[in-house]
Amino acid sequence: MAGLLPKGSVVKNLLQMASPGAQALHPYQPGKPASELAREIGLEPGAIVKLASNENPLGPSPLAQAAVHELLALSRYPDGAGFELRQTLAEHLQVEPAQLTLGNGSSDLLDFVTRIFVQPGDNIVVSEHAFSLYGLNATAVGAEVREAPAKDFGHDLAAMAALVDERTRLVFITNPNNPTGTWLAEDSIRAFLAQLPEHVIAILDEAYFEYVDQDGYPDGTRLLADFPRLLVTRTFSKAYGLAALRVGYGVSSTELAELLNRVRPPFNVNAAAQAAAVAAVKDQAHVQRSVSANRLGMKQLIDAFEQLGLDYLPSVGNFLCVRLDNAKTVNAALLQRGVIVRALGGYGMPEYLRISIGTEAENKRFIDMLTEVLAQGDAA
Amino acid sequence: MAGLLPKGSVVKNLLQMASPGAQALHPYQPGKPASELAREIGLEPGAIVKLASNENPLGPSPLAQAAVHELLALSRYPDGAGFELRQTLAEHLQVEPAQLTLGNGSSDLLDFVTRIFVQPGDNIVVSEHAFSLYGLNATAVGAEVREAPAKDFGHDLAAMAALVDERTRLVFITNPNNPTGTWLAEDSIRAFLAQLPEHVIAILDEAYFEYVDQDGYPDGTRLLADFPRLLVTRTFSKAYGLAALRVGYGVSSTELAELLNRVRPPFNVNAAAQAAAVAAVKDQAHVQRSVSANRLGMKQLIDAFEQLGLDYLPSVGNFLCVRLDNAKTVNAALLQRGVIVRALGGYGMPEYLRISIGTEAENKRFIDMLTEVLAQGDAA
Repeated sequence: MAGLLPKGSVVKNLLQMASPGAQALHPYQPGKPASELAREIGLEPGAIVKLASNENPLGPSPLAQAAVHELLALSRYPDGAGFELRQTLAEHLQVEPAQLTLGNGSSDLLDFVTRIFVQPGDNIVVSEHAFSLYGLNATAVGAEVREAPAKDFGHDLAAMAALVDERTRLVFITNPNNPTGTWLAEDSIRAFLAQLPEHVIAILDEAYFEYVDQDGYPDGTRLLADFPRLLVTRTFSKAYGLAALRVGYGVSSTELAELLNRVRPPFNVNAAAQAAAVAAVKDQAHVQRSVSANRLGMKQLIDAFEQLGLDYLPSVGNFLCVRLDNAKTVNAALLQRGVIVRALGGYGMPEYLRISIGTEAENKRFIDMLTEVLAQGDAA
Repeated sequence: MAGLLPKGSVVKNLLQMASPGAQALHPYQPGKPASELAREIGLEPGAIVKLASNENPLGPSPLAQAAVHELLALSRYPDGAGFELRQTLAEHLQVEPAQLTLGNGSSDLLDFVTRIFVQPGDNIVVSEHAFSLYGLNATAVGAEVREAPAKDFGHDLAAMAALVDERTRLVFITNPNNPTGTWLAEDSIRAFLAQLPEHVIAILDEAYFEYVDQDGYPDGTRLLADFPRLLVTRTFSKAYGLAALRVGYGVSSTELAELLNRVRPPFNVNAAAQAAAVAAVKDQAHVQRSVSANRLGMKQLIDAFEQLGLDYLPSVGNFLCVRLDNAKTVNAALLQRGVIVRALGGYGMPEYLRISIGTEAENKRFIDMLTEVLAQGDAA
């Protein structure tokens, strides 16, 4: 009788009832929200500097903000097909609307593709130091996660290819990679994709695409004509400054998009998110301003690290990894001073902290606090 | 070589690569958005009356609307833990925050519970004429969907219990049921839950809870003390008037909530949705106004159906099913007149249309158009 069990036995029974995947799952740990730290250390949320989640310090386009403020029909279900957003994106990207799949963040796409193609006993191939969600999704469906060692903190595509076998269903390339900021050139990606067996889907995660300005850096959507088993994912959470609203998208062959849209819940992107994203796409000048500000902020941080004699990983994204002998202690000391950055133990880089590029004032506050912490040696 | 396949072979190969569940999946068909019908028949969206998705015609609390308009930090990730919303809900419901799981709509909860507990070869038990998403989720993971025939359009709990076997993982009770508007009393639900075997989780879907005013109708959260394998789901999309923003939640034992939160994506409910929901919970007077308006609208429709000599199913929700000899043709004729209601072929009730209770003016417009269609006989 379900209701008459002694209380203590419930936990074990529920866990035993769960799938092996769910039993093995340890949830993704997001960056600490400023409000949470403010509660913990007794500061006002406004006094906290958060450089931990690679958000856009300029915020979104004013047009996107206005679109949210003008949203009236809150009681009506969103357009489940995302008609206007897909039209707007298709025009901007020069693809067909039928090639697009909308996500509640691009993480939704990573989940969909895993649920469609990966079954217990299958495996996926990822790089060391890559986004942990790739592996979490595979673990949840009972699959094996094969991690290729990184080369100079970047993807080693040859090592990844060597891990592919008959049971491999997905390979994940992040370009540029988070958290290391490394990037891959078009020719190396093309060569890697061309030798993948037919039973493998490749995911090219371009969450930081808009920030990159490097010769030879590819626009993944231009590879689709040659690789029908490629899924390119992008997001409005970074350069577009809409992390609060959760919008991402996949670009693929129409055939793959049709499958992705089968498992997509019909209202996964809410109406506020759709309206803001439409407006944001139409304001590319804001994206360019954000990219320019990022370049200046990156220089500000690099100059400070060099002055402090700290090693860092050159990055083409909107974040930067700095090496510290005692990163964990420095991180704790920064938190006590109201500065949130990202510890990277979960990415296999315990000696690094990842700093998101903030506004000039936010960067300065971080630099000042880091300088203070290192000078006081209370992190030693 | 992935890139060198002839184009025509791609579709078949991708489908073959998908899991049996994804191959069998046919996406949930949401109600037609007004904007879509407007495009199709060349009317302004404002000229369309949509009574198809059981939304709140009064809209949300003005406080919830204001919360969205005041939302500023669009570039920051939402609070992944939903701290404030869970605190606010816990206080309102008189439960612990740890008993709550937030969803991108309550449909998210239905998905989580299926993914945790249901594996290929398992089965779930549902009632005839129930929400199709229960079965879709189970199909997606390769499970069998067992449907118990309805009794007088409501759940036949004895028939459902008879379908439970060793491989049953979930049973779904909708109270009140959508689309039929029927409801179950507390004693019958308690008796049903008490005889479920230990390996079965029961889901009590209370999407329309706030509308019901019947002696003996239970508050599912009050059953949790006796049934640790019970998940109660609720939504902000109906009486709270926030369908556009996608917020739902599950209430359960803390043990079950811990499992649900393992598979919950950390940012599944966006910041606009969280802010609006917090404000909406605090304005219970608006909920009461909405329930009162619904009662008047229900009477308006019933009076019209009786005057037109049409049979209908008595309903305790914010919707009503009306029987028509040629429901499909009447539905098409209504659409041509800019009135969207819900055809119920997908619910095994092809001779019925489901009408959501709208404002007095929307109800009148529907009644006028229905009267016209029936009089002209162009639906015959």
